[in-house]
Amino acid sequence: MTTTDHTQETTMRPIYVLNGPNLNLLGQREPEKYGTTTLDQIRELCEQTAAEHGIGLDFRQSNHEGVLIDWIQEARTHASGIILNPAGYTTTSIAIMDALLAADIPVIEVHITNIHRREEFRHHSYVSKAAQAVIAGAGPHGYQLALTHMAQLV
Amino acid sequence: MTTTDHTQETTMRPIYVLNGPNLNLLGQREPEKYGTTTLDQIRELCEQTAAEHGIGLDFRQSNHEGVLIDWIQEARTHASGIILNPAGYTTTSIAIMDALLAADIPVIEVHITNIHRREEFRHHSYVSKAAQAVIAGAGPHGYQLALTHMAQLV
Amino acid sequence: MTTTDHTQETTMRPIYVLNGPNLNLLGQREPEKYGTTTLDQIRELCEQTAAEHGIGLDFRQSNHEGVLIDWIQEARTHASGIILNPAGYTTTSIAIMDALLAADIPVIEVHITNIHRREEFRHHSYVSKAAQAVIAGAGPHGYQLALTHMAQLV
Amino acid sequence: MTTTDHTQETTMRPIYVLNGPNLNLLGQREPEKYGTTTLDQIRELCEQTAAEHGIGLDFRQSNHEGVLIDWIQEARTHASGIILNPAGYTTTSIAIMDALLAADIPVIEVHITNIHRREEFRHHSYVSKAAQAVIAGAGPHGYQLALTHMAQLV
Amino acid sequence: MTTTDHTQETTMRPIYVLNGPNLNLLGQREPEKYGTTTLDQIRELCEQTAAEHGIGLDFRQSNHEGVLIDWIQEARTHASGIILNPAGYTTTSIAIMDALLAADIPVIEVHITNIHRREEFRHHSYVSKAAQAVIAGAGPHGYQLALTHMAQLV
Amino acid sequence: MTTTDHTQETTMRPIYVLNGPNLNLLGQREPEKYGTTTLDQIRELCEQTAAEHGIGLDFRQSNHEGVLIDWIQEARTHASGIILNPAGYTTTSIAIMDALLAADIPVIEVHITNIHRREEFRHHSYVSKAAQAVIAGAGPHGYQLALTHMAQLV
Amino acid sequence: MTTTDHTQETTMRPIYVLNGPNLNLLGQREPEKYGTTTLDQIRELCEQTAAEHGIGLDFRQSNHEGVLIDWIQEARTHASGIILNPAGYTTTSIAIMDALLAADIPVIEVHITNIHRREEFRHHSYVSKAAQAVIAGAGPHGYQLALTHMAQLV
Amino acid sequence: MTTTDHTQETTMRPIYVLNGPNLNLLGQREPEKYGTTTLDQIRELCEQTAAEHGIGLDFRQSNHEGVLIDWIQEARTHASGIILNPAGYTTTSIAIMDALLAADIPVIEVHITNIHRREEFRHHSYVSKAAQAVIAGAGPHGYQLALTHMAQLV
Amino acid sequence: MTTTDHTQETTMRPIYVLNGPNLNLLGQREPEKYGTTTLDQIRELCEQTAAEHGIGLDFRQSNHEGVLIDWIQEARTHASGIILNPAGYTTTSIAIMDALLAADIPVIEVHITNIHRREEFRHHSYVSKAAQAVIAGAGPHGYQLALTHMAQLV
Amino acid sequence: MTTTDHTQETTMRPIYVLNGPNLNLLGQREPEKYGTTTLDQIRELCEQTAAEHGIGLDFRQSNHEGVLIDWIQEARTHASGIILNPAGYTTTSIAIMDALLAADIPVIEVHITNIHRREEFRHHSYVSKAAQAVIAGAGPHGYQLALTHMAQLV
Amino acid sequence: MTTTDHTQETTMRPIYVLNGPNLNLLGQREPEKYGTTTLDQIRELCEQTAAEHGIGLDFRQSNHEGVLIDWIQEARTHASGIILNPAGYTTTSIAIMDALLAADIPVIEVHITNIHRREEFRHHSYVSKAAQAVIAGAGPHGYQLALTHMAQLV
Amino acid sequence: MTTTDHTQETTMRPIYVLNGPNLNLLGQREPEKYGTTTLDQIRELCEQTAAEHGIGLDFRQSNHEGVLIDWIQEARTHASGIILNPAGYTTTSIAIMDALLAADIPVIEVHITNIHRREEFRHHSYVSKAAQAVIAGAGPHGYQLALTHMAQLV
Repeated sequence: MTTTDHTQETTMRPIYVLNGPNLNLLGQREPEKYGTTTLDQIRELCEQTAAEHGIGLDFRQSNHEGVLIDWIQEARTHASGIILNPAGYTTTSIAIMDALLAADIPVIEVHITNIHRREEFRHHSYVSKAAQAVIAGAGPHGYQLALTHMAQLV
Repeated sequence: MTTTDHTQETTMRPIYVLNGPNLNLLGQREPEKYGTTTLDQIRELCEQTAAEHGIGLDFRQSNHEGVLIDWIQEARTHASGIILNPAGYTTTSIAIMDALLAADIPVIEVHITNIHRREEFRHHSYVSKAAQAVIAGAGPHGYQLALTHMAQLV
Repeated sequence: MTTTDHTQETTMRPIYVLNGPNLNLLGQREPEKYGTTTLDQIRELCEQTAAEHGIGLDFRQSNHEGVLIDWIQEARTHASGIILNPAGYTTTSIAIMDALLAADIPVIEVHITNIHRREEFRHHSYVSKAAQAVIAGAGPHGYQLALTHMAQLV
Repeated sequence: MTTTDHTQETTMRPIYVLNGPNLNLLGQREPEKYGTTTLDQIRELCEQTAAEHGIGLDFRQSNHEGVLIDWIQEARTHASGIILNPAGYTTTSIAIMDALLAADIPVIEVHITNIHRREEFRHHSYVSKAAQAVIAGAGPHGYQLALTHMAQLV
Repeated sequence: MTTTDHTQETTMRPIYVLNGPNLNLLGQREPEKYGTTTLDQIRELCEQTAAEHGIGLDFRQSNHEGVLIDWIQEARTHASGIILNPAGYTTTSIAIMDALLAADIPVIEVHITNIHRREEFRHHSYVSKAAQAVIAGAGPHGYQLALTHMAQLV
Repeated sequence: MTTTDHTQETTMRPIYVLNGPNLNLLGQREPEKYGTTTLDQIRELCEQTAAEHGIGLDFRQSNHEGVLIDWIQEARTHASGIILNPAGYTTTSIAIMDALLAADIPVIEVHITNIHRREEFRHHSYVSKAAQAVIAGAGPHGYQLALTHMAQLV
Repeated sequence: MTTTDHTQETTMRPIYVLNGPNLNLLGQREPEKYGTTTLDQIRELCEQTAAEHGIGLDFRQSNHEGVLIDWIQEARTHASGIILNPAGYTTTSIAIMDALLAADIPVIEVHITNIHRREEFRHHSYVSKAAQAVIAGAGPHGYQLALTHMAQLV
Repeated sequence: MTTTDHTQETTMRPIYVLNGPNLNLLGQREPEKYGTTTLDQIRELCEQTAAEHGIGLDFRQSNHEGVLIDWIQEARTHASGIILNPAGYTTTSIAIMDALLAADIPVIEVHITNIHRREEFRHHSYVSKAAQAVIAGAGPHGYQLALTHMAQLV
Repeated sequence: MTTTDHTQETTMRPIYVLNGPNLNLLGQREPEKYGTTTLDQIRELCEQTAAEHGIGLDFRQSNHEGVLIDWIQEARTHASGIILNPAGYTTTSIAIMDALLAADIPVIEVHITNIHRREEFRHHSYVSKAAQAVIAGAGPHGYQLALTHMAQLV
Repeated sequence: MTTTDHTQETTMRPIYVLNGPNLNLLGQREPEKYGTTTLDQIRELCEQTAAEHGIGLDFRQSNHEGVLIDWIQEARTHASGIILNPAGYTTTSIAIMDALLAADIPVIEVHITNIHRREEFRHHSYVSKAAQAVIAGAGPHGYQLALTHMAQLV
Repeated sequence: MTTTDHTQETTMRPIYVLNGPNLNLLGQREPEKYGTTTLDQIRELCEQTAAEHGIGLDFRQSNHEGVLIDWIQEARTHASGIILNPAGYTTTSIAIMDALLAADIPVIEVHITNIHRREEFRHHSYVSKAAQAVIAGAGPHGYQLALTHMAQLV
Repeated sequence: MTTTDHTQETTMRPIYVLNGPNLNLLGQREPEKYGTTTLDQIRELCEQTAAEHGIGLDFRQSNHEGVLIDWIQEARTHASGIILNPAGYTTTSIAIMDALLAADIPVIEVHITNIHRREEFRHHSYVSKAAQAVIAGAGPHGYQLALTHMAQLV
């Protein structure tokens, strides 16, 4: 579990950037598919973008579906928006979808690769049913695009 | 995780009432769909009904599939019956179904809403293959009906 | 066709408990699957429960889809709620579903067995799309649970 | 069962206008979906149109699939054409389709609503395989269009 | 409804030969598909074969699914076997299948045409799940083959 | 592209009658399936009916999906209703459906043949999801029925 | 390969009774499913029935799809009809179906068990598309029924 | 067809921003679904963003699949990247996908709404198989995000 | 649009060789898949083969479905046969199929690659339902084979 | 089994032309579908074409899937190319496909009829996955086209 | 056909190791997929392992489905267990499955490659329904593992 | 969670043997299906086999999908191979598959029962897409076979 401890001077609640299973291996795992940027480097990119927009950030990763749900529930009352890369739980987790539907704050789904060019079973997303916007295939930059868009929504 | 600590004078093992992901948000989450009763209020209703039938109660909630499986395994040797609202794990968890099949005590599946009137993907239930009875759409009252029926089975 | 003639002193309209095809054979037909309780005994159980809740009862059975539709239409103006065990018409009768949708009074669907543990073709129910609540697998007791819940709704 | 007794001076056989389950509730049932015109008013509209074209009319309704089949068989030798609103039996009744195929007189299928804009399961029609023409979504007026077209065919 | 009244001297219960919707039109309806033999002629063929085997016969036809179910239920206690041509209810009637499963006497399904050479939707049969044997495509002779086989079973 | 130039004295906008691919071949193409009436003759029939109802008419045909979309967009602001025979684009064109949904004036879908009696792939219609009414199988007369119904809607 | 050598006094060509894979094991293989009658005993039963009808018989078995096709081709010019139990090739062999379609003599398909009560994958039959009649579930007697019916066809 | 004439001082080829059918109606068509921003306003937003990144822009719209393909082919040799909102051709056009695959320059797919929250038939995209990135549900802002990302790719 | 102007001395109508979307890019687009031969070179190969057989040729290409339909309609009265490479419209265009069915002259479908070895969605072809013959995977030579075969048909 | 014994003076290995089940009946079997040319006549046509191209020929037919596989394996080391009409094994034989994949010499699939205009179940071909080219619907001439193309490949 | 002649001193029946179509090409065919070990080398590996466990071995290969069935039937009475690599017949042969079900001795299915990582159509196995154990993807070593496990079973 | 603490003298990294949900109940749960061997006994069997091959072992069990993913990630850098019995997560966990794909060490999937003989929904395995080899149905012995094979791979 990676956590960005992050003191926010502003009164606005931070954006939660939540990352699903195996994303902690970014940069090491199948780099020809996922690139060489690590999750820590993505966090840094996000912090830059967040700072540019004057918004706080809480950046986390977990392999546990239940932990992700706990965090989304926490975000309901502690965050002003959720950016979620659900990774391997994208196509199977109704429970994460339900948590997002309950959250009642803006949700943006991010995928590093374009899942529609990969195996058939990766094309369907339950998370998409609970997200305002979906950004796929823009690599680590996709997180920054998501934050830029979130800055407009919150 | 919500737990009812509960000293049982009777020698009979209690009924485990297990609640799946996001049910801790009941009353706050989409009240037009799930009503305004909270999970704590449901626990109180269950305790009343259990008391009427002279049966013990252990009422819990978790967002973690693995924790629910641990509890079901615990129930094999510590409970006389399981009432389960599997929520978002209903249609996807073969592992919960397998745990229930192994439990060898009566199982009743409860849903607050009538899942058959909701989205197509909510109609299928793996849990139903391991449950004696299914009660859906009766709201919080459904838990009480389940306990009343459990009292006949145990 | 089995009919409970039933003088109601109360001003409230009775609950119609309607039973579909082959349920008149209960107790005789495949008892290892459906149990040994007869439909007459279920009617008696229902009458007890109805009396406890001070509600009237009209208990009927027919093998004819058209007759069931006629009764449901009659219930629109003569009953305060419908409890229906659609039996063999569960998965195929859009006409019964339409009649229930038109009825505009509470509807509870009851199945003696848990249809989700039986053959695949029994899992789908058109009736469920027109029912507030569904109770399956609780045996004859399921009728009583349905009446108890109906007493809350009407 | 609604029947139009109807003495025909002409030697030509009348047109049977047959209405399936729940259509007797028209005007009362879900008026936002089916409108406020009653089946009696539709019969009157049909009688006007039939009179304009100098053709006889036999207008009936039943909730019973078997009765509808009996009437279609009767029409084989007593009617010069059939206008059928099969309602809830549209998508499921091979038996009605077979009766129509045997009838060997023109058949027009009418639906008050455009079934293709409703739930997926209403899109398929066995009756269409035995009908010359299909008119859907024209409301009560659809019956008059069907009669106008029938006047060309018989 | 066609009924063979038939005094049986033997103590053995008769065979019920039940015919579904539109079979009363045999010989008239689409003779290039169903042949020119009428249902009355088939009844006579059956009576000859039954007499040869010394078994009683009760030969009936109805367009009503409910009536067919009533007769199958009656056969449970009054017949020693059922020969059923379910016609248009073959592929859709779970209720008839359930009645046959409850009957607990030998059941043979007969089809005049080979349904497997006809439209796709006619290939599936719920009735087959409740029948010992199925004979299709042997024309009116199929009824006689069924009776010959029934004589071995009862 | 066939166009009816048509000076309208009335202030009401005309009805656009739009015909899709290959309909310019009517009367020549597979006459055993589509009849011997040409598209010009259908236009004349439509003009008669329109005149009877005192409504203007703009009758066109194109093989180009894009042109049909252009015309439907034009109709938004220039017509009071659209009658569309989408022909080969019926089952595949989401773009035409979207144009119709945007048009915000009554739409009636017409097919010369009963598409539900033809090949399976012709049964589905995207256009139907954007049409008030659908008339199929009434031949050239179907256009006149559509105009008659349109006269009621506009 | 089992072959009945069989001198025919009559000038009529014999009936080929062809048996597919594993039928040589009848009586030994899963007797609770297939009974205790051996294939040799079935051949004797067939010879009796053939003699009664004065028709010749050629009774064979092979596990080889190609051999069955060779025999069916031979039957085209040497037999007056084919009775085929395709066993394991029933649902998969288009090549056998094509050979039967080419044969241009009556074909009857026989199955000892009612394949429609067995596993789903056994319900489909390519052979049925090339057979006049199908008899399933009548046990060894089914062969005799098939011969009796063949005697009417040839 | 909307075209942005646009003199580029830089030597880099411009980005083509191509818009499919009915997008010219943006702002007028179903504003509750697509918002009130017009396509001209989106062009202006794009021009601002392009200017910020110092890249040229060619912004067009057509209802014609063939015209869109012509433009994509033109882009192969005249543009440095394509941003495409395929609208109604998203899920059906293999021809557009093939043109994009041939283009050999970066492609980004944009949708104003999140198509995964809309009707099932809108979830599949052939265009996605030929796009580096997909941005859906970010409204008009999505075009700007796409341009920002394109600025990184070209 | 590529057109072969071509004076024919013979009185026989020419063969139309029509090419669908993106084929104008042959030789440049994905040469590892489609080879390095250009469409112009294929036209020359066709002209050689046509000259050998003494038949006229009209060789065209368009990216527009509607234009292809216009040309096929033109071919009805101006050509003696059609050779069509439908490319990206192969699997989706019912409108092209309908135009071909109406043409009433021989049609041969050509594909440069073997579409059955490519992605699943390319395997189905509506065009094949309207073609006498299909030649796939023979590269540019396939056009010559098609012309050689056409010379036999016309 | 038909075999062309064939002394080859050239050093090049011959082309194997292999024919699957029931093709030995060509000319006799359903001539309205398959034409009146016999397989011997096709062999002669092939020999002429082979001679024109100076290539050897080995022409065979078998009803046995295993024999066809043996021949394809033999072709690996004895032939320079395979032309295969797999007939009834086209859609079902993964084993033939595997043998072809192992052969590592050019393979052309030929069908006398256009299988895509026949029954749905004939549209799929496993053989196509292992063939360079597919020629269907060109009748006996298709073999000659295949040989002409093979002459280019070997 | 490859056969291991093998005198067994022990009284125990040998294990039949049966290999399906194209396995005789192992080591030559697509070595990057199937490796370079030949079937003869696999036989030697099996003989070593069998000797270690003191069990006899009969190692065979055939391309003919019928021959494989004959051998499986032979194994019923001559072998104590069957190890089968069904190769190309894995997913299609119900007849081989039936033979194995009849054999009533232990059956182990072996695949050299992991069929679940290959094409979708190779994932299903009828043989698995008749096998105690399945070993896939362990290369030639898989045969040895199978023999080791068989030694425990017999 | 069961863990084998295990000091390894060798420098080679150990094999992780990971067990999914409910496997801790082995021996107690449904012994007629899973046998009477406990997971502790399987661990002992594995330790024996590992010792024989001189390889270290780390044997664990968890009901939590996230914990299993954590362990697989740990194995990337601490183990030389993974043997995984994914149990109830076999058919649903894309996240576990992704973790295995990232691990880049040999993976063997083990199932105690032959999952292909069980319910249809257990036949599919995401894990298989990331495993070198799959061993199913060999009972506890399957773990030993997997270790024996792993000893060859590492």
